[in-house]
Amino acid sequence: MRIALGVEYDGTDFLGWQRLGTGRTVQGVLEEALSFVANTPIEVTCAGRTDAGVHGRCQVVHFDTDVQRQDRGWILGTNSRLPTEVAVRWLRHVPDAFHARFSARARRYRYTLLNRPIRPALDARFVAWERLPLDVERMQAGAQHLIGEHDFNAFRTVACQAPNPVRTIHALQIERDDDRIHFEIQANAFLHHMVRNIIGSLLPVGLGERPPEWVGEVLRGRDRALAGPTAPACGLTFLRPLYPDEFGLPAEVCL
Amino acid sequence: MRIALGVEYDGTDFLGWQRLGTGRTVQGVLEEALSFVANTPIEVTCAGRTDAGVHGRCQVVHFDTDVQRQDRGWILGTNSRLPTEVAVRWLRHVPDAFHARFSARARRYRYTLLNRPIRPALDARFVAWERLPLDVERMQAGAQHLIGEHDFNAFRTVACQAPNPVRTIHALQIERDDDRIHFEIQANAFLHHMVRNIIGSLLPVGLGERPPEWVGEVLRGRDRALAGPTAPACGLTFLRPLYPDEFGLPAEVCL
Repeated sequence: MRIALGVEYDGTDFLGWQRLGTGRTVQGVLEEALSFVANTPIEVTCAGRTDAGVHGRCQVVHFDTDVQRQDRGWILGTNSRLPTEVAVRWLRHVPDAFHARFSARARRYRYTLLNRPIRPALDARFVAWERLPLDVERMQAGAQHLIGEHDFNAFRTVACQAPNPVRTIHALQIERDDDRIHFEIQANAFLHHMVRNIIGSLLPVGLGERPPEWVGEVLRGRDRALAGPTAPACGLTFLRPLYPDEFGLPAEVCL
Repeated sequence: MRIALGVEYDGTDFLGWQRLGTGRTVQGVLEEALSFVANTPIEVTCAGRTDAGVHGRCQVVHFDTDVQRQDRGWILGTNSRLPTEVAVRWLRHVPDAFHARFSARARRYRYTLLNRPIRPALDARFVAWERLPLDVERMQAGAQHLIGEHDFNAFRTVACQAPNPVRTIHALQIERDDDRIHFEIQANAFLHHMVRNIIGSLLPVGLGERPPEWVGEVLRGRDRALAGPTAPACGLTFLRPLYPDEFGLPAEVCL
């Protein structure tokens, strides 16, 4: 029996998604809570591993089990064992053909920058900070160079283990809301640090240090050393993966 | 020389605004940071003391000092000594007639409820939670009974020390944004726990347990025992006090 879960978390006080030998991770606390409810070890597979400090609005995981529990029992039991900053939002029984990672056709992330002279305080856990004024239109012009299928080698960390650096960006929207700038980016999949390296490369364009065309040059150069620095993790939230309708998942994660 | 500051904070990990003999408070860390910059003890007076766990978007304080520092020095120096969840946003030199508390003509608070079956996780620090569906229109109808000048004795804690329980509510707006319900309330001033007790009394109306008119009955009864429970602190943010233009403060805190 395969079960899929929607999971939400504030990643601030975790060493990232992936279970480690030691250290607090989202996968670790989730598996511990599920295993308690199942009374037997449960291992989960997620749609997209997030780094330390990155948040999840609707991460999706699946796991296999023969244990019989009511859906409500799984959800409430697990949530009662999870720390306050992690919660299971929904549960669906899915066919064995469903795989949280491989069935996903797209992933959507949001990045938020506080753009004002003074550092963040009230929402320091959830925003990155740029004190100099950013020009959103320039960044939008720069972002256009990234839309579509490209080799994103310039925007992945050298530690990235993906054999193929080609990905397709479906959309990259940038909007200002008062002193906040929101970036929303959707791609079929992302390389390691790809969102944060893209944000870090749009910043010099927004600051006027680079022309919008420079983003295209960096992309074509395929060299990480040409791109901007990796933007801080705290501004990043994994909004959701997107799956074909056929798996019967909640609308928020359906294409 | 009198100086006014705009201060922002995530109140989660504080015992509230007011300095105590022991324990971490927002006033305590702010005075410590200012005193370091001034190299002499500084005491501040705020527009509105917030309880443990309540947040501040733009709290205003004033203090008196003969110490000469550049405005930038005060702000950056103080922020560098403050913990990450507190920041001074702006500084203004104000006339001695200005008083952060007594010059304020109004205060504005925001309360946010997450209204869904599953408890909050990603923003657990900033929202309260109601798992049963709330009817915003019913709550809006109930809230109408509170607008204007009234004796709010029913909505203050028994520990409240204000000699006069009459306050004037200028506006109480309630809006749904997906699974979030935002309440914004402005009054000339608030009694202790007044916002949280009002929210706690609108909830039974939103749940259909009480008619909207019940809010008016509670108000007229002037008895705390008749009102609903105190809503949790985490959902509450002190947005700002409002002052007459004449003090030359930033637009966000001017009437």
